[in-house]
Amino acid sequence: MGVVVQNILRAEPEIIDRLAACGVATVHEAQGRKGLLASHMRPIYSGARIAASAVTISAPPGDNWMIHVAIEQIRHGDLLLLAPTSPCEDGYFGDLLATSAMARGCRGLVIDAGVRDVADLTAMQFPVWSKAIFAQGTVKETIGSVNVPVVCAGALVNPGDVIVADDDGVCVVRREEAADVADRAEARIAAEEGKRKRLASGELGLDIYDMRGRLTEKGLRYV
Amino acid sequence: MGVVVQNILRAEPEIIDRLAACGVATVHEAQGRKGLLASHMRPIYSGARIAASAVTISAPPGDNWMIHVAIEQIRHGDLLLLAPTSPCEDGYFGDLLATSAMARGCRGLVIDAGVRDVADLTAMQFPVWSKAIFAQGTVKETIGSVNVPVVCAGALVNPGDVIVADDDGVCVVRREEAADVADRAEARIAAEEGKRKRLASGELGLDIYDMRGRLTEKGLRYV
Amino acid sequence: MGVVVQNILRAEPEIIDRLAACGVATVHEAQGRKGLLASHMRPIYSGARIAASAVTISAPPGDNWMIHVAIEQIRHGDLLLLAPTSPCEDGYFGDLLATSAMARGCRGLVIDAGVRDVADLTAMQFPVWSKAIFAQGTVKETIGSVNVPVVCAGALVNPGDVIVADDDGVCVVRREEAADVADRAEARIAAEEGKRKRLASGELGLDIYDMRGRLTEKGLRYV
Amino acid sequence: MGVVVQNILRAEPEIIDRLAACGVATVHEAQGRKGLLASHMRPIYSGARIAASAVTISAPPGDNWMIHVAIEQIRHGDLLLLAPTSPCEDGYFGDLLATSAMARGCRGLVIDAGVRDVADLTAMQFPVWSKAIFAQGTVKETIGSVNVPVVCAGALVNPGDVIVADDDGVCVVRREEAADVADRAEARIAAEEGKRKRLASGELGLDIYDMRGRLTEKGLRYV
Amino acid sequence: MGVVVQNILRAEPEIIDRLAACGVATVHEAQGRKGLLASHMRPIYSGARIAASAVTISAPPGDNWMIHVAIEQIRHGDLLLLAPTSPCEDGYFGDLLATSAMARGCRGLVIDAGVRDVADLTAMQFPVWSKAIFAQGTVKETIGSVNVPVVCAGALVNPGDVIVADDDGVCVVRREEAADVADRAEARIAAEEGKRKRLASGELGLDIYDMRGRLTEKGLRYV
Amino acid sequence: MGVVVQNILRAEPEIIDRLAACGVATVHEAQGRKGLLASHMRPIYSGARIAASAVTISAPPGDNWMIHVAIEQIRHGDLLLLAPTSPCEDGYFGDLLATSAMARGCRGLVIDAGVRDVADLTAMQFPVWSKAIFAQGTVKETIGSVNVPVVCAGALVNPGDVIVADDDGVCVVRREEAADVADRAEARIAAEEGKRKRLASGELGLDIYDMRGRLTEKGLRYV
Repeated sequence: MGVVVQNILRAEPEIIDRLAACGVATVHEAQGRKGLLASHMRPIYSGARIAASAVTISAPPGDNWMIHVAIEQIRHGDLLLLAPTSPCEDGYFGDLLATSAMARGCRGLVIDAGVRDVADLTAMQFPVWSKAIFAQGTVKETIGSVNVPVVCAGALVNPGDVIVADDDGVCVVRREEAADVADRAEARIAAEEGKRKRLASGELGLDIYDMRGRLTEKGLRYV
Repeated sequence: MGVVVQNILRAEPEIIDRLAACGVATVHEAQGRKGLLASHMRPIYSGARIAASAVTISAPPGDNWMIHVAIEQIRHGDLLLLAPTSPCEDGYFGDLLATSAMARGCRGLVIDAGVRDVADLTAMQFPVWSKAIFAQGTVKETIGSVNVPVVCAGALVNPGDVIVADDDGVCVVRREEAADVADRAEARIAAEEGKRKRLASGELGLDIYDMRGRLTEKGLRYV
Repeated sequence: MGVVVQNILRAEPEIIDRLAACGVATVHEAQGRKGLLASHMRPIYSGARIAASAVTISAPPGDNWMIHVAIEQIRHGDLLLLAPTSPCEDGYFGDLLATSAMARGCRGLVIDAGVRDVADLTAMQFPVWSKAIFAQGTVKETIGSVNVPVVCAGALVNPGDVIVADDDGVCVVRREEAADVADRAEARIAAEEGKRKRLASGELGLDIYDMRGRLTEKGLRYV
Repeated sequence: MGVVVQNILRAEPEIIDRLAACGVATVHEAQGRKGLLASHMRPIYSGARIAASAVTISAPPGDNWMIHVAIEQIRHGDLLLLAPTSPCEDGYFGDLLATSAMARGCRGLVIDAGVRDVADLTAMQFPVWSKAIFAQGTVKETIGSVNVPVVCAGALVNPGDVIVADDDGVCVVRREEAADVADRAEARIAAEEGKRKRLASGELGLDIYDMRGRLTEKGLRYV
Repeated sequence: MGVVVQNILRAEPEIIDRLAACGVATVHEAQGRKGLLASHMRPIYSGARIAASAVTISAPPGDNWMIHVAIEQIRHGDLLLLAPTSPCEDGYFGDLLATSAMARGCRGLVIDAGVRDVADLTAMQFPVWSKAIFAQGTVKETIGSVNVPVVCAGALVNPGDVIVADDDGVCVVRREEAADVADRAEARIAAEEGKRKRLASGELGLDIYDMRGRLTEKGLRYV
Repeated sequence: MGVVVQNILRAEPEIIDRLAACGVATVHEAQGRKGLLASHMRPIYSGARIAASAVTISAPPGDNWMIHVAIEQIRHGDLLLLAPTSPCEDGYFGDLLATSAMARGCRGLVIDAGVRDVADLTAMQFPVWSKAIFAQGTVKETIGSVNVPVVCAGALVNPGDVIVADDDGVCVVRREEAADVADRAEARIAAEEGKRKRLASGELGLDIYDMRGRLTEKGLRYV
């Protein structure tokens, strides 16, 4: 504990933006249905959709000191991702830290704990996905680490991994797989376009995907 | 398991619409304080208020195959109601299925599990009441049943029962009782109108409902 | 049990309004990080920020009789705060009671249980912070007490204490400490203003708060 | 509401006892993986395994009056099953009610709420499966119903249905299906006996159930 | 914050022991159905029944420093009661602290957080009621207070109040009311004795408590 | 997905047994307060204390097919550790699978889902740490992976990592660090022995750990 890794690898900005455009559900499917953070990670306001490289923070419960340390490590276009070392819903982050983070080019925060000043954060359009909205203040007494691998809301996140977040929640994409996942996610969207039109015209998924035979085989009976 | 019931009875459309106009809280009271689904069933966006006949789905955890089967059974003005056979919060339903369901005249979805693509669903104004918003993908491997009685979020729902849903949550009305409940719900609203005016003018419920004597009898003391 | 205390002391209206202007997070910090209600207390709509003297209600589970009793005790500018005597999420409160409470000058409701008619309450701009949104009806059979000390969502609230509530949640300020807390909260806001500008310009908290030395002492290593 | 059904049909005692001997997991499988109550229903002590006909109780939250009414309806070998009309964990039941129920030949209690005096109930060997252990007292003010269909911990239970309960939880078997389910459960146990021996000798399920081919088809790769 | 109150008043030892003999459920009823801590407070082993004066601890999340401070304040026959200042399930307490506390005559621990070394604590017969069993270690960086009023698991506890704890959970009795509550609890037990015999002989509560008339008045129908 | 890694590295058996002897709390502390699985992972019976190399399983929700595959990969002295790909509490594992696993030398199961047949498993003394006890049956339709890294109950587990589990919960130790952690854990136990004696004799932690000065510095006041 107590390490700050200063040089981390990041995915290409252009790939990150393509992943943002695809959104969480599509990216999750495109990489083989993996990488989702738990469903308790909810946005503080609707409508944000971002992707960014993760600057990770491992912090003690109720202690937000490491956020200050992490902000120095942000490069333009990154986001902060915090995992407490034991379950906690304290409000580690508010409008002052958001002001600082935005000044460094930070795109948002993902935190498996609490956040506060959410009215201000919404007005600033600084998006946060969190486990709780809670004003409980924190201390600055115990150190943690920045840019180490963490498990956040049930998902392993390495520093520099790409985080995609929108109204559906949060997904992590391994940095090394980001380009490939972006390709597959876009292919998926393209493929869905045709299906959407057929479904909109009233055609059934049962027919489009040719499911009737297999359903009968499995024993489905119509009565 | 593995049955699709094709012909179910439905309540009269006009009665269904009257129930929608009354809303969940009033309908619940009008039928004797019964029929509510659990409070964890929340709308993905505010402001929707619907009623519709339920096409019910009993589906395995993490398997959305039966939704395709159920969509074929929708008649204009129905809604889909899905109960997993064990607790699950996976995202069974997204914008493609919503496109298909809307094309069949579906009014919305009630699901004791997860939903995804909620930004799209909101843009489409396809209302969903769910236990979770979660992008977790599902498989199509195991069959379930359509239009059988299910227990959804703690309430028994028979196919063809009327579901009323709004910002307060979800309520089920037995098909056979729908006309009677609509009458009683409207009577309740009419009766409330006069009380609302008196209360708005500053008159107290203690006096309007003549509660003071009974409170004293029960032993209430003013100090 | 079964007591209504009719004369309670309240903080000065001007102090209450100053606390409202400061908001929950600042007030909580200003009084030494105490007084928050649990994070499950969420507003039914975004954007409300109020402070008011608490008229407290201790009510049995599933019985809202005491709310009628409490409304008579409201003075202009108060709010209602209800703590059930055992865990409950029933919908104790809806639009009729809100109409009555507003007619008495009530600023809102804080309830460690459920609320209903939330679409109407939102249209009326009657703010509520609750544990649940749930239409479940209640009875009027068992008495409780009004204006006695209660524990609500984990916080002790005395009648006449000041409640501050906004999108971050709910905080209680002891009546006797209200003036002092208002002073400290405003001082805190003033002090933050300068820091916000420095942070917005890109200066780091590490430097503004002079943290680097102490971090090194604690053993933080940069690699 | 407010109905006591006095004459309900029950399954044969001999069939009920056969179901008890099979246990919850086997019975659940034998009837097609249905009928389980939610996993929060836990026994107050380990080692009890019972089956019995359900005398059902629909009771208001925090009101145990109907248990007294229900005890009169018990026939030797029945059990009590209580579902509150809204979520509640109050202690509806303790040693006095257990004394009364045992005197009537009651085999146990299944309650989707709380229970108390658990040390006494354990000493009396009166088994209870409950959502909570909680001493919170209840009132006797509002009536409910006895021997009507209820949804208990997510499962529909009709009066006279057979309840099987052991350390794995609680399962309901429809009265009309009880004999058939007992046959299938016993057949299942018999079939398992041979498999258990083969597995105990070190033979693999992969081979006994001939799974290797189908796993390969699905794409499983050994590396 | 940061205060240790050294001289607190305690109830008479003889009264405390009488309350222990009565147990949680009876004491809770005898004092008017109040004082229970939340149902998530469970004993780490079955069969302990204690009462003791509370030495209270208000501690930061994940920081157990104040327990060391509190142990010095224990007098023979007290117990420790810890409430974290925000929700936490870390393991504040284990076998070393228990050894120290037992050496001071401590009867047990009530903690709205986690405990560890439970196998050792069980072997030592040092009873603990906690929210969680969790080995997560804590730090010693931030001070709290000892012997101040705290809200623990939803109940207000003043230093010197009597805590009663057994397999049903935990109840607090105000120090000033302890003698009176002990009298009423014992009277309650005496009164129950006769009823238990009548119930054991098969007489019904409906008749013993003369409930039939009032049930009919409320509208209960037998069919 | 769909991979079985057949050759994994394991820690030395002797080191594994030394870790078992130290127990979860000590091992967790000795490795710097890391590696705990979430507190919801509870043993099905008290008193087991094991350590073993993890054969990891990534399985779909409600599908236990991969357990059969994993059992073939067990070497004498291993344990099975299962993480579902989305939250699930179904009963993946019962007495037949335990029979098979024991025949292969398996020391136990850690599963972030449900288990059943717990009475049998207890009789067999096959220890399980699980999220739930639930009889819900599973299917065998969708493949997963064996011996890949998984996040189980919030902790990253690599195949071959050492799992320590006892009444306090479950802890993972990296295979490469196992020897070092065993050394440090044993040193910790040795160091605690002396302290335990001093504490048992009534000496205070305040003095043994020389805390008084630092508490005063932090501002602790005795009144």
